[in-house]
Amino acid sequence: MRISGLVERTGVPLATVKYYLREGLLPPGRAVGAKLSLYGEEHVRRLALIRALRDTANLPLARVRTIVALIDEPADDLLESLGRAVAALPPAVADDRQGPYPRAEGVAREIGPAIDPGSTAMAQLEDALAAAESVGLGISAERARLYAQHLRAMAEFDIAQVPTGDRGRAIEYSVLGTAIYEPVIAAMRRLAHQDVARSARDDAGDR
Amino acid sequence: MRISGLVERTGVPLATVKYYLREGLLPPGRAVGAKLSLYGEEHVRRLALIRALRDTANLPLARVRTIVALIDEPADDLLESLGRAVAALPPAVADDRQGPYPRAEGVAREIGPAIDPGSTAMAQLEDALAAAESVGLGISAERARLYAQHLRAMAEFDIAQVPTGDRGRAIEYSVLGTAIYEPVIAAMRRLAHQDVARSARDDAGDR
Repeated sequence: MRISGLVERTGVPLATVKYYLREGLLPPGRAVGAKLSLYGEEHVRRLALIRALRDTANLPLARVRTIVALIDEPADDLLESLGRAVAALPPAVADDRQGPYPRAEGVAREIGPAIDPGSTAMAQLEDALAAAESVGLGISAERARLYAQHLRAMAEFDIAQVPTGDRGRAIEYSVLGTAIYEPVIAAMRRLAHQDVARSARDDAGDR
Repeated sequence: MRISGLVERTGVPLATVKYYLREGLLPPGRAVGAKLSLYGEEHVRRLALIRALRDTANLPLARVRTIVALIDEPADDLLESLGRAVAALPPAVADDRQGPYPRAEGVAREIGPAIDPGSTAMAQLEDALAAAESVGLGISAERARLYAQHLRAMAEFDIAQVPTGDRGRAIEYSVLGTAIYEPVIAAMRRLAHQDVARSARDDAGDR
């Protein structure tokens, strides 16, 4: 399709599409003449990815650029590229941040043995646990164990869905699955609280 | 303690403490003279609550005010107050937003029967699922069922921890537990993905 078709299909304004092309966030179309380039489904998908990261995950453009570069040129070590792409997602952690992450380490032990103790998610967990502690809601060993068990079961399902074969697609899927499903899980958790609390009240009313 | 002690204990600047007092976010101290009021642990806790909602949950002051009012004067129906307090947490939903929420309804059925189909969390879930769909990651029935099962198990644990007796405390706990634990769960989920993916690689390497 022509660039006008891409604009129509995706709803992304022409000026924005041209900007993404100039910035290398969107790969160039196939040139079929001096003044005409054609775009395909990969461009539609890339614009959806950028929009999701910008609008849903509120990612600054520099972070989107990091992720797109990892998708377009994944390292030989797929898990290394995956880790760096997911680390570009919010919440932001200072680039020079270093451990140790004492609170996170205790919880990570409950999740599993293969966690990289220096990974960005460890810093994010440390910050989140410190915030909980500051309001007197520090995580108990029991809660850490229970959460870890259920979140690992969900993660096993997730990882089994990651497309194999194309490493770029695997990174794209993982980044989107992380960023896009965090709000899904947060909302489902609020509904689960609501259901448990209201069920308990209804049961009490029946007695 | 005097107001200076409150500033010292909490690290909240004096001007901010005075502002919260004027705005009614912080209840007045106990007047012990024409020019002296004394503050107690309830003031320390309230400042920690406000700070957590402002800084960690990025809540605008108007939303903090809604939550504080519900804690200070809970309705007779505790679950009603709880629902309204949690609904004030991000992500924001337009006040006049109305269902139906077709995507969320399918998922809510997997969570449990007692969910209020018009609640704010339903709108939040609908938006999150629509965003997932827009990048080709719409939730499958299998994923919805599995997530629902695990999140409900976690919610049962959470609800059992809510302090009973004082309704204001129950609302405070629930709001903080919701806002403060969402980033904890997001970070733990990222670590669980990392652990599952790295364990699979290590296993493959062993073969």
